[in-house]
Amino acid sequence: MQLNTTICALATGGGTSALAVIRVSGPDALLITDKIFIGKKSKKLAQQKGYTLHFGNIYWDNQLIDEVLVSVFKQPHSYTGENLVEISCHGSIFIQQSILSALQAAGAKAAKAGEFTLRSFLNGKIDLSQAEAVADIIASENKAAHTLAFQQLRGGYSDEIKKLRAELMTFAALIELELDFSTEDVEFADRTQLKTLIDQLIINIKLLRTGFTLGNVIKSGIPVAIVGKPNAGKSTLLNALLKEEKAIVSSIAGTTRDAIEDVLVIDGTAFRFIDTAGLRETQDEVEKIGIERSYLKMQQASIILYLFDANEMNSEDVKNEIYTIKASSKTDQVVIPVANKTDITSEIKLNEFASIDNLINLSAKNNEGIEILKNAFTNWIISERIKSSDMLVSNARHAHSLEKAEVSLVTVIDGLQNQIPSDLLATDIRAATEALSEITGEVTNDELLGIIFGKFCIGK
Amino acid sequence: MQLNTTICALATGGGTSALAVIRVSGPDALLITDKIFIGKKSKKLAQQKGYTLHFGNIYWDNQLIDEVLVSVFKQPHSYTGENLVEISCHGSIFIQQSILSALQAAGAKAAKAGEFTLRSFLNGKIDLSQAEAVADIIASENKAAHTLAFQQLRGGYSDEIKKLRAELMTFAALIELELDFSTEDVEFADRTQLKTLIDQLIINIKLLRTGFTLGNVIKSGIPVAIVGKPNAGKSTLLNALLKEEKAIVSSIAGTTRDAIEDVLVIDGTAFRFIDTAGLRETQDEVEKIGIERSYLKMQQASIILYLFDANEMNSEDVKNEIYTIKASSKTDQVVIPVANKTDITSEIKLNEFASIDNLINLSAKNNEGIEILKNAFTNWIISERIKSSDMLVSNARHAHSLEKAEVSLVTVIDGLQNQIPSDLLATDIRAATEALSEITGEVTNDELLGIIFGKFCIGK
Repeated sequence: MQLNTTICALATGGGTSALAVIRVSGPDALLITDKIFIGKKSKKLAQQKGYTLHFGNIYWDNQLIDEVLVSVFKQPHSYTGENLVEISCHGSIFIQQSILSALQAAGAKAAKAGEFTLRSFLNGKIDLSQAEAVADIIASENKAAHTLAFQQLRGGYSDEIKKLRAELMTFAALIELELDFSTEDVEFADRTQLKTLIDQLIINIKLLRTGFTLGNVIKSGIPVAIVGKPNAGKSTLLNALLKEEKAIVSSIAGTTRDAIEDVLVIDGTAFRFIDTAGLRETQDEVEKIGIERSYLKMQQASIILYLFDANEMNSEDVKNEIYTIKASSKTDQVVIPVANKTDITSEIKLNEFASIDNLINLSAKNNEGIEILKNAFTNWIISERIKSSDMLVSNARHAHSLEKAEVSLVTVIDGLQNQIPSDLLATDIRAATEALSEITGEVTNDELLGIIFGKFCIGK
Repeated sequence: MQLNTTICALATGGGTSALAVIRVSGPDALLITDKIFIGKKSKKLAQQKGYTLHFGNIYWDNQLIDEVLVSVFKQPHSYTGENLVEISCHGSIFIQQSILSALQAAGAKAAKAGEFTLRSFLNGKIDLSQAEAVADIIASENKAAHTLAFQQLRGGYSDEIKKLRAELMTFAALIELELDFSTEDVEFADRTQLKTLIDQLIINIKLLRTGFTLGNVIKSGIPVAIVGKPNAGKSTLLNALLKEEKAIVSSIAGTTRDAIEDVLVIDGTAFRFIDTAGLRETQDEVEKIGIERSYLKMQQASIILYLFDANEMNSEDVKNEIYTIKASSKTDQVVIPVANKTDITSEIKLNEFASIDNLINLSAKNNEGIEILKNAFTNWIISERIKSSDMLVSNARHAHSLEKAEVSLVTVIDGLQNQIPSDLLATDIRAATEALSEITGEVTNDELLGIIFGKFCIGK
């Protein structure tokens, strides 16, 4: 992490395009670019103000490389907090490579993945949680994931955590002060206030941790398992949802050969439909294994959609199947029973099914009832959001730090009840503040930074 | 071609990247962007000066889409000659699409391929030849192709053609004036001067036409056919060239299953190595077909490299093979005989080969003599350049227009010699000026523009 070097990288998508942008950041960004840039009337970038644009030519080895537009930003008023130059050139691969080579020959180093954002963090422009949000924003492919990442970039829960951590630090300092007066048996830190603060912290952390599951599934798409007999009309239903939404549908390869998943964006949230084999009573050993696998896949889902052909099934069988599914599902999973082919089902039969809780009737073929099913999906998100904090955590690293902090805080509460010595209490509080600081990056180590920024794309 | 609309498009390469740039051009570019952009202190772009940068947020539907940096250019001081805005956003696919949707909802139209450059042409910022050069610059993958395209962008031969065409127009006008005084038998246009001008034009056009072949092969890589027996050491030679140059080598699929071509960049110029079957005397009918195919492939090459194993061959056989190759090659092709494996060949044998014209001795395995072969390639380009104009034409459309102009000019010369009436002479001159104007676009039609700009990428 040498902040005294100047780095450069291509910031836009590679390949041939109309434009490409090359970024240069560091103390010598302007001076290095001036070595290869000849502005109009031989204008020098180093003498220009920040937030200005300059047209000119890139020359190297007495060869004209390109006509470019250069943006100048001066430290600390730039993304990285350093002197920063953005060169907007023609999107030819040859030109992009030539300019990068020229910049390196002129003294810049090739940037590593995430190095621009790392510098932004090291220069105090953003905290660690915000830096991680930048990577999530770039990777976001749907509205919900994008909103979540932006909430984090804007401070989100890290502001809250910083505030609570600072209060905790004050208590830790006061308790440590007591150690200096240990013979006098004084208490600078009000134990009742401390307990109230820690209780509040534990509630907040618990909420954030609950929100992690939701945050995480929102980021990668909410998994929905459709179970039911093969002829229940699964693909007709997926097509109906697609038609209704004019949404993006893509197929992504799963971990097993047969698990091709359909991703459907409904109201800006991605839903991942997990294919499962049909469910039925069988004596066939091979088929039994297939059905076991279906139950295993159901375990990964947030929503289990039990689809059946209303014309073929009777209400007793349906209730039995729902019972079996619920028995094998986890408590945080919701099971939605859906009766399909209601257009060809008799009134008598439909009345019979009316006793099934939360049943949705639809005809995928005739595009009837699709709206009701969509509402069920949307309602699921709303109810899950109510259970968790407003601030959702989507980062596994943060969830882990929150868990560590919670464990330490519970230890502090135990210590307070057992009236353990001040020095032990202080150690437990310090452990909690450290776990919290890992989220915002107030205390970090090089290895952690390497792991976080290594996931970035080059040029960011 | 409605210049009163405002267009928008992604200008950088698609996909996920650190940054992406969206361009907006047209009379309302600033007003439309202001509908979705909230600058610091609610700054309005329409009130800002050209060549300035502004940080702010893109909002649409009360949703924050992204934090962006906006570049403002005011007509006529922009690439398109119109009001132009460049929005630099995070390179997430969701964000790129959301901003484009927001711009379109706010009144911009999605740009067609090449529409920004088309507007630059229609607004008189660049001529047609320069517009075509922009597409070539973007597509250029090696230094020579890039230099060629830049020469054309900078005016290149189109300036020369414009000048000569203007002089020709003056003569045409004078001759047309004579028609008004036809009863008086006057000559306003000096026939001798006219003939001198046309002779000059024909020389220039002939040079440019000669340069077309070279320009075209430089653009797509100079084709080199390596012929010789299979054990002559072709792949060792290619590897030696590669090692020497640390150059870019790629394999591109040819038209036939077996024609995988190696592209090697030597001194910034791309050479395309065409694989051919071995040459040898045979009675086998099938093998004869293979050898005929080799001769056919040789026809496509600018350089024929005849490679033989100096240790295995005698000078008589080599001379016979060279004779056969030259007999079947075209006059503008150069044949370079190369003796390989000189490291294991006796001095006596090498002396024997000395009588072969322009022979290059090398040992591909030991990396000896490679530099001499490289020089032979470079010399070929120099000698070809001497034969043609300094200005190379790489555009087939231009070559065709030049040919049409030359035919018309020869007709004018014939007419002058046969003292044909002024009105016929004027018509012939007009035909030549029209053919020339097709290159620079001084006279164009919509269909032609559609063909030229349809080849561009979106966003340029």
